[in-house]
Amino acid sequence: MKALVYHGPGKKAWEEKPMPTILDDTDAIVHVDSVTICGTDLHILKGDVPEVTDGRILGHEAVGTVTEVGSGVKNLSVGDKVLVSCITACGSCSYCREGRYGQCLGGGGWILGHLIDGTQAEYVRVPFADTSTYAVPPGVSDEQVLMLADILPTGYEVGVLNGTVKPGDVVAVVGAGPIGLSAIMGSRLYSPSHVIAIDLADSRLEAAKQFGADILVNNTREDALRVVQELTGGLGADVAIEAVGTPATFELTTSLVKPGGHVANIGVHGESATLHLETLWIRNVTITTGLVDTFSTPTLLRLVSGDQIDAAKFVTHHFRLDEFEAAYDVFGNAAETGALKVVLSAQA
Amino acid sequence: MKALVYHGPGKKAWEEKPMPTILDDTDAIVHVDSVTICGTDLHILKGDVPEVTDGRILGHEAVGTVTEVGSGVKNLSVGDKVLVSCITACGSCSYCREGRYGQCLGGGGWILGHLIDGTQAEYVRVPFADTSTYAVPPGVSDEQVLMLADILPTGYEVGVLNGTVKPGDVVAVVGAGPIGLSAIMGSRLYSPSHVIAIDLADSRLEAAKQFGADILVNNTREDALRVVQELTGGLGADVAIEAVGTPATFELTTSLVKPGGHVANIGVHGESATLHLETLWIRNVTITTGLVDTFSTPTLLRLVSGDQIDAAKFVTHHFRLDEFEAAYDVFGNAAETGALKVVLSAQA
Amino acid sequence: MKALVYHGPGKKAWEEKPMPTILDDTDAIVHVDSVTICGTDLHILKGDVPEVTDGRILGHEAVGTVTEVGSGVKNLSVGDKVLVSCITACGSCSYCREGRYGQCLGGGGWILGHLIDGTQAEYVRVPFADTSTYAVPPGVSDEQVLMLADILPTGYEVGVLNGTVKPGDVVAVVGAGPIGLSAIMGSRLYSPSHVIAIDLADSRLEAAKQFGADILVNNTREDALRVVQELTGGLGADVAIEAVGTPATFELTTSLVKPGGHVANIGVHGESATLHLETLWIRNVTITTGLVDTFSTPTLLRLVSGDQIDAAKFVTHHFRLDEFEAAYDVFGNAAETGALKVVLSAQA
Amino acid sequence: MKALVYHGPGKKAWEEKPMPTILDDTDAIVHVDSVTICGTDLHILKGDVPEVTDGRILGHEAVGTVTEVGSGVKNLSVGDKVLVSCITACGSCSYCREGRYGQCLGGGGWILGHLIDGTQAEYVRVPFADTSTYAVPPGVSDEQVLMLADILPTGYEVGVLNGTVKPGDVVAVVGAGPIGLSAIMGSRLYSPSHVIAIDLADSRLEAAKQFGADILVNNTREDALRVVQELTGGLGADVAIEAVGTPATFELTTSLVKPGGHVANIGVHGESATLHLETLWIRNVTITTGLVDTFSTPTLLRLVSGDQIDAAKFVTHHFRLDEFEAAYDVFGNAAETGALKVVLSAQA
Repeated sequence: MKALVYHGPGKKAWEEKPMPTILDDTDAIVHVDSVTICGTDLHILKGDVPEVTDGRILGHEAVGTVTEVGSGVKNLSVGDKVLVSCITACGSCSYCREGRYGQCLGGGGWILGHLIDGTQAEYVRVPFADTSTYAVPPGVSDEQVLMLADILPTGYEVGVLNGTVKPGDVVAVVGAGPIGLSAIMGSRLYSPSHVIAIDLADSRLEAAKQFGADILVNNTREDALRVVQELTGGLGADVAIEAVGTPATFELTTSLVKPGGHVANIGVHGESATLHLETLWIRNVTITTGLVDTFSTPTLLRLVSGDQIDAAKFVTHHFRLDEFEAAYDVFGNAAETGALKVVLSAQA
Repeated sequence: MKALVYHGPGKKAWEEKPMPTILDDTDAIVHVDSVTICGTDLHILKGDVPEVTDGRILGHEAVGTVTEVGSGVKNLSVGDKVLVSCITACGSCSYCREGRYGQCLGGGGWILGHLIDGTQAEYVRVPFADTSTYAVPPGVSDEQVLMLADILPTGYEVGVLNGTVKPGDVVAVVGAGPIGLSAIMGSRLYSPSHVIAIDLADSRLEAAKQFGADILVNNTREDALRVVQELTGGLGADVAIEAVGTPATFELTTSLVKPGGHVANIGVHGESATLHLETLWIRNVTITTGLVDTFSTPTLLRLVSGDQIDAAKFVTHHFRLDEFEAAYDVFGNAAETGALKVVLSAQA
Repeated sequence: MKALVYHGPGKKAWEEKPMPTILDDTDAIVHVDSVTICGTDLHILKGDVPEVTDGRILGHEAVGTVTEVGSGVKNLSVGDKVLVSCITACGSCSYCREGRYGQCLGGGGWILGHLIDGTQAEYVRVPFADTSTYAVPPGVSDEQVLMLADILPTGYEVGVLNGTVKPGDVVAVVGAGPIGLSAIMGSRLYSPSHVIAIDLADSRLEAAKQFGADILVNNTREDALRVVQELTGGLGADVAIEAVGTPATFELTTSLVKPGGHVANIGVHGESATLHLETLWIRNVTITTGLVDTFSTPTLLRLVSGDQIDAAKFVTHHFRLDEFEAAYDVFGNAAETGALKVVLSAQA
Repeated sequence: MKALVYHGPGKKAWEEKPMPTILDDTDAIVHVDSVTICGTDLHILKGDVPEVTDGRILGHEAVGTVTEVGSGVKNLSVGDKVLVSCITACGSCSYCREGRYGQCLGGGGWILGHLIDGTQAEYVRVPFADTSTYAVPPGVSDEQVLMLADILPTGYEVGVLNGTVKPGDVVAVVGAGPIGLSAIMGSRLYSPSHVIAIDLADSRLEAAKQFGADILVNNTREDALRVVQELTGGLGADVAIEAVGTPATFELTTSLVKPGGHVANIGVHGESATLHLETLWIRNVTITTGLVDTFSTPTLLRLVSGDQIDAAKFVTHHFRLDEFEAAYDVFGNAAETGALKVVLSAQA
């Protein structure tokens, strides 16, 4: 089969690889119908994730069709249309038993396209298939469901739920890239009073408006802290969400929250940040971090099925599966192309 | 009357001051029967708290007897024995209505011995007396109740409750000074499996054992991280509590917590700390900060009344009210004197 | 002044009464600008609430203008436009300090138009005015705010929050009178998948659709249990809300909930109901009851100000303040008049 | 092998049955080392549980040694010492993924000794063995661990956690049989102020004292409601736990709780109870029911290992495995024999 293979920093190729096979009886083999590219894949290609080694097939998000199941797979059958989630769950370790699949101790967690071969291929082996895939509901398109492989549960769980967004809240989201947009969209499910999007680029802020932000702050021109304080009588936001992953944006985010409020970090950080405990120690703030667990996937699938989340709104570009080079170019140059999520689909 | 007055960094005096009077109809005047000294008072004397100005009477903890009430005081009468809490609550602002008295927007919060004259005096004016004092239950000594003015609710709310200590948990407490001991004592109310005390001084670790720690780590000699990991199969503590207030101890605390665990900061910090987001972003940790709200005071009073908390265990030294100089000396040299809390009492 | 006075079962009159005066220093006198009638007022008139005695002025909901304040009132001034809530809160008892104002032990709770004279009058004395009234935000009409005196917080707190409605949930509401509609409207703030309205009258079901129900069940013709089970794969609703107050509707509500789900009772019951513990003991259900506390009033005011709740939708009929007889007739014959809430307004 | 077989109401026999075999690849076969009898087994023998049919091997609690595992079992090996829990969990259905194993939709739940052959035998087949058994920690006796098969998690989850017992609470437990004692013991983990045991028999109340109750009420002689109200200033208990399973005790329990308090039903009910909504509707109570899920088993194992729970205290009588007739007699006549839990052990 063909697959997108990582060959060290800066190098990738769409090339021939052996078909995946069942290695453990709880594995399934899935034909990839649709797949997308994550910001994390760009990090890997820069060499930022040394656990990913030469020869690895990339990708941790897919919608596909089961073509083979191990003898220990109970709930999947050949021909089933499934969402392959970015998180693999053994289902029996202490973390999995609490729904914290991202921290799986039994061989799961984020492994696809990271520690084992991933989904940017014609076929993928999915370990612990019963607890790591989800049936695609009838009447929902592949590309809608594909947004639930990673980006939507990440914004929802790590941003909205960790941040405890509530009706009437003021929510500030720093960063209006795809993950920030996901947090904005997810926040709206809880009827906050205001969702403030903060970014450096007007184009991303314009997207934020489409996803539910009602106040836009370009912090190359405006002082985000002042905007938030004016809106809140000087108190600050109920919830402040970091969706970038740099020390500066993290510091900004912690400055925006009111006493007693929540800071939810979604950003993937490569270095330490400064925590201003000299002011924060007395402000009763709660700061959370997190890799997605995907425990919310069934809920989000229901909301997408019921048209309460318009997941397709993320998809800006479509490609054939063999056009990975072009798709990476478009996604990697989002500032110019306006790409949010790109979808690559196998031909029918 | 006599009072302990701050006269700028390093300077204090037990001197004559005018008797306090009712300024607002919700004030009460309280005769101070017993009073203690807080670590924060030492900070003030070093000049670390610039809001405290020359002439201010220090102190924010007392047990006393009501001698006068304003016309708007509903629930207190002259002669009532009361606990004067470190936190003053207006009772009607948005924070007070949520029990977050420490963040009071209506003129309360931590004001005694800070923004207004405090309790280290023969008499003290207590604003919003109905919502800022608590009746002393029968059969409980002054000095037991005095420990509920600040140290016990601080350890309990900001350490134990923010940290969400649960039965079976492993709790690591960094710092075994009075506030760390309070967190250790409070943790035991929730039946954790282990409470690990970490400190630089064997004498404080010995005290930690008396307050409920079952594992003692002197981190001048031992590697706290290794101890915690060995105990927890490499995962880390369920709850890690910072009870010192330095960048180094904060960093240590965040290193001890397991994925999905809680870091509760109690320490008063004068400078920023480094937050290792490059490792923490993926570990689903929750970090909380906080000034005490004292919403738990009624609960703690019940527990002290029922001998379920031995609050008197904190009291290592007793003085007469006019011996403030000596009391500050003993408390300020805790390393040599072994002082935890000192109590100064008016003569009967 | 004129007021609507209760004179025993079945008897009421719009008659002359003395002007209310400040009795306690925390009282305010409020000129009633707009007032409404509650289903509870109809119960009182039937003689169902014996605590209400001959001579009592009815009514516990109003929007008005402060005309006088006691010396202990801190946050209100003459001329302020305020919401007078159905719940009076002393602000300092143990329940008030937890935000449970409905259970106030200090002389508050539901007292207006019940234990003391109420709001269906030209003027009303409001005890504990600082903690029992709310400033009307700019740009919001009286009649919108009036819906927050009772009906909106009741549906929201006792139905939606007690029931823990979450995104993606299936919510079943038994009874589509005003309080059921309030629960339906409040549920939508949390983005449930489906809100099922169950009632005996098609006209009320039609209203339920306007308030956000997407599935309508007339249980004179349809089997509500079967509808809920078909929708949920046989499991039942995540949340089932009782909004009628009869044994039969309570039993129906408890039959609709899934294992692990929540039953929120809002209905005012005059007799016992049968609890089918022989089936429910094993189903892990949570059943809640409650009088409203009105702790959510600030949140709901924000949502109404921001047009996220269309509170005016409840108001079907308008009257002058002296038209109480007619207003009670229309409200009391809702089946024929289609009345949801009636508003009586003082003339400008 | 030998097993205790049910032959219709009133009839049971210790007789020869075929050895169990692996039917599904996730099954394990376990040699029963220790087993106990549950109150539910007595119900079955009375014919109260019609799902249990003639020929069924009884029992749903055991500690044993794995003798065979199916090919799909990942975490168990032959020779492992395990706790066989009363609840079987498929591990992948929607309920199991939320830790609600008691409501398992995938073939688990309470099935042992109910829908499939149980543990009162020399060997037992355990389905979904990875997620339905727990490793016995070193240094803990079989009989201690055996108490975690059902009775301890039931009292803890369905009584203590559902009831939300907190430090300082007043907890009233109606019924001081084994399950009530378990709730009393579990409550003490949270440091309540008082645990009131209410029962008809002085002998059981004496046991309650040993398990942590500090106030004993024999309600053949004393008025439980009056005792609770006197203790609580007329308010009622924070948490009231039903541990009998009759309409009368349920009604009593709901009368004991304070406004805003929790009623946790543990009792197994065979008929409906009267719910006094005419008084409860306004009292903001929360009533929960529940079959145990056993999600707390790992926590309880830690607490037993650390001597924080003295599980062996339940065990009043010991028998050999072939003495089931005698053991049932002793357990079934608890009023005379004082039996709490009886343990039957295979000979070494």
